[in-house]
Amino acid sequence: MDCIEKVNDALKQMKEKRPLVHHITNYVTFNDCANVGLAIGASPVMSDEIKEVADMVSICNALVLNIGTCNERTLESMIEAGKAANTNNIPIILDPVGIGATPFRFQAIERLMQEIRFSVIRGNMAEIKVIAGLGAERRGVDSLEDESNSAQLAENLAKQLGCVIAITGKSDSVSNGEITYVLGNGHENLAKVTGTGCMTSSLIGSFLGGGSDAHISAISAILCMSIAGEIATEKLIDRKAIGSFKIYLMDTISALNPAEIRVRAKASLIK
Amino acid sequence: MDCIEKVNDALKQMKEKRPLVHHITNYVTFNDCANVGLAIGASPVMSDEIKEVADMVSICNALVLNIGTCNERTLESMIEAGKAANTNNIPIILDPVGIGATPFRFQAIERLMQEIRFSVIRGNMAEIKVIAGLGAERRGVDSLEDESNSAQLAENLAKQLGCVIAITGKSDSVSNGEITYVLGNGHENLAKVTGTGCMTSSLIGSFLGGGSDAHISAISAILCMSIAGEIATEKLIDRKAIGSFKIYLMDTISALNPAEIRVRAKASLIK
Amino acid sequence: MDCIEKVNDALKQMKEKRPLVHHITNYVTFNDCANVGLAIGASPVMSDEIKEVADMVSICNALVLNIGTCNERTLESMIEAGKAANTNNIPIILDPVGIGATPFRFQAIERLMQEIRFSVIRGNMAEIKVIAGLGAERRGVDSLEDESNSAQLAENLAKQLGCVIAITGKSDSVSNGEITYVLGNGHENLAKVTGTGCMTSSLIGSFLGGGSDAHISAISAILCMSIAGEIATEKLIDRKAIGSFKIYLMDTISALNPAEIRVRAKASLIK
Repeated sequence: MDCIEKVNDALKQMKEKRPLVHHITNYVTFNDCANVGLAIGASPVMSDEIKEVADMVSICNALVLNIGTCNERTLESMIEAGKAANTNNIPIILDPVGIGATPFRFQAIERLMQEIRFSVIRGNMAEIKVIAGLGAERRGVDSLEDESNSAQLAENLAKQLGCVIAITGKSDSVSNGEITYVLGNGHENLAKVTGTGCMTSSLIGSFLGGGSDAHISAISAILCMSIAGEIATEKLIDRKAIGSFKIYLMDTISALNPAEIRVRAKASLIK
Repeated sequence: MDCIEKVNDALKQMKEKRPLVHHITNYVTFNDCANVGLAIGASPVMSDEIKEVADMVSICNALVLNIGTCNERTLESMIEAGKAANTNNIPIILDPVGIGATPFRFQAIERLMQEIRFSVIRGNMAEIKVIAGLGAERRGVDSLEDESNSAQLAENLAKQLGCVIAITGKSDSVSNGEITYVLGNGHENLAKVTGTGCMTSSLIGSFLGGGSDAHISAISAILCMSIAGEIATEKLIDRKAIGSFKIYLMDTISALNPAEIRVRAKASLIK
Repeated sequence: MDCIEKVNDALKQMKEKRPLVHHITNYVTFNDCANVGLAIGASPVMSDEIKEVADMVSICNALVLNIGTCNERTLESMIEAGKAANTNNIPIILDPVGIGATPFRFQAIERLMQEIRFSVIRGNMAEIKVIAGLGAERRGVDSLEDESNSAQLAENLAKQLGCVIAITGKSDSVSNGEITYVLGNGHENLAKVTGTGCMTSSLIGSFLGGGSDAHISAISAILCMSIAGEIATEKLIDRKAIGSFKIYLMDTISALNPAEIRVRAKASLIK
C-alpha cells in the first residue's frame, strides 16, 4: 500500500477509535492542542499533577510530552508519566521546544531521553540539531536554521536513537532510520501562529493513540497540519490575516477528508 | 412567573450588576472562561495563589471552582477560596472535571465537598454519577454515558446534597431537589470544542454573581450556552467548521437577547 | 520628525529585527500575547521557571513582566528575570494587573519596583493610581475609574519614578516625565475581550526589543492596538460580535501598514 493510502487508513482508524491522548504540554498552547485533538477526532486530556499522571496515562492510548513551559515540578510529572507509559506500552511523542535556548531545557531533554523510550521526537531544525549534538544558533523557540540536510539528519538520528525523528519546517523530513520521507506541503502562515508545532505534536499523539505505527503517525499528523495550512490560506481573502488563518486551520482540520489528502499530499520517499 | 421569563430577568439583572466572578479553573480553558464571562456581561477574575484568593474572593460576587488541571498547590487554594466564599456568603459553583479519571481527582472532590458548601455542582453524566457513587466508565474528561436517567439522578442527588445539581449533555437536567427541569437546546458541535463545559460553569458563576438563585442561575447559563450553540451552528456555511463555530458561539453569547431566548428555549418541568 | 513618523519607523525597525521578547505573563492571556507578538513581527518566548529565566532573558531583546496570575513561585522568577535584564541592559515593561485587588499583588509590585528598574509601566487608571499612592476603588482587574486626570498623573508619576508611564483607557496618556502624549484611538470593544491590556504590554515589549526608546515604544504599541481595534470593529457586520472582533483584531495587527497609521493616529502633545 502506498504511503498516502496508509495515511488515510490511519486517519479513519483514529477517528473510529477516538483515542484518549494524555498531554503534559505547555500553557501557551494548551487550548489549541486540546482543540486540534478534538478536531481531528481524538479525545485529549491534560494534567501535570504528579499524583495523577501515572493513573491518567494508564487509561490513555498515547502520551504527548512538550517542554514549552516546562518547570521543575512539571519535569518530574513528565518523568513519572513517561515511565508509566513505557510500562504500559503506550506510545510517547516528545516535543523538545526551544531545547537550545537554555541549559535547563537541554538538561530536561537529556534526562527525559535517558529515563524514557520515545516513539517519535518532533522538532524544528534547530531543536533536532541540538539533540543530534551538532550545535545550532542559540535562539528562542523559532528556528532560523538552514534546512537543506534535514532528511539525512532525520535518518541518522532515527537510526542512532531507535525512534522516529520528524523535522518540520519549510519541508519536513520523517525517518524511522530505514525509510525516510520528505513532505512538501504547508504554507509560511503556519510559522506566524503560535503553537502550530505543538499542535502537530498533539496530532502525532492522536495518530499514535489511534493505533498506527510511529512512522505513519508522524507522517499523517504532519500532512494533516500542512495540507490544512494550505487550504486555510486559500480560504483567506487577505493572505496576511493571521487571526482568520488560525480559525480556518481548525475548520479545515475538523473536516479533512481522504480525497483532499490524496490530491494534495506531497510525500517523496528518499531511501 | 414562568421559567423562561425568570431566565431573562436573571440575564438583565446580571448585565446591570456586572458581577466580579473569581475563578480557580483549569489552564486549558482559562482564556475561554474569561471571554465568555465578559461576553455575557460579567467581570471575570482569575488567580490561584493561596496568599491572595481569600482577599480576592471577598470582593467578588461568586466563585467558580474547576478541577480540570487541579494540582496539589491549586487544590489548597481552592479550599482557601471556598472557605472565604462560605464565610462571606458568596455562592460557589463546582465543576468536577474528569472526577472519575483518577483517584487524585476523586479525593480532591471528596475533600472540597467535605470542607465547602456549594450552591451548584455541574458536570456531565459520567462525572455526576461518580459523585452519586453510582460508578461510571473510567475515561478521560468526555462522557460516553447513557443519559436516560439524568433527571431522576439530578433530583435525587440535589436532595441528598442540598445543592443544585446540573447534568449537561445531549439534554440537560437541573434540579434543586424539589423542582427539576429538563432542557432541550444545544448542538453536538458544543462537544467538539474544548471548554464548553467549563464555560457553562463560568456562566453559572456569572448568574450567581448577578444575584439570581442557584436553580435559575444554572438553568440560565445552560440555556444561554446551548441556544448560542444552536444559533452559532446555523451561522456556519460548513456545519463541521469547528474553529468558526467557536467564534460564532462567542459572538452569539455577547449578543443574546430576551426575544431569542423566549423563542428558542426548551425547558420542561419534570416534577 | 513628528511623533507618527517615529511610530512608523519603530514599526519598520522592529519588523526587520524580529526581536526575541521574553514573557513572564499570566496564564489567561499567554496564547494571545504570543500571537500578537508574532502578528506584529516579533518573536515571543514564554517561561517562568526560575532555573532558566536568566539564561533566556540574556538572549532576548526585551522582557515583559505581567502579574495577572502571579504566584509565589513565579514572583521569584520575575525578580530573577528582571535582575538579569537590568544587568544586561535589556529593557523591561511592567504590567501591574489588578494591583489594587489584593495585598499580595500590591506587595508583589512593591518588591518588583524596589529590586528592578523598568523602562515602561503600563496599566489602566485604577492600577496606575494605586502605584501613585492615590487610592482607587478596590475591584478586580477591570477599571471603572474617572480618567480625566490621566495625562497629569502619567507625567507626575513618570517624573517621580524615572520611567515611562502609560495609562490606557478610553483615551491613553503616555509620558516620560518631560513629554506627554494623549492618544485618542480605540473602540470600546477592546474592553470586552480579555487580554487586550496584556497584549498591549506585549506589543510594548516588541517595540522595546526592536530598539526604540521607551516613550516611542509605548506610544507605538498603544496606537497599533487601538487603531487595530477601530479597524476590526469596522469590519464587523454585527458590532457586538466579540468573538469575530478578536479575530479581526489579530488580522489587522498582522497587516497594519504605515499609511493606515498615518491617516488614523490621534496623538496630541500635551506639554
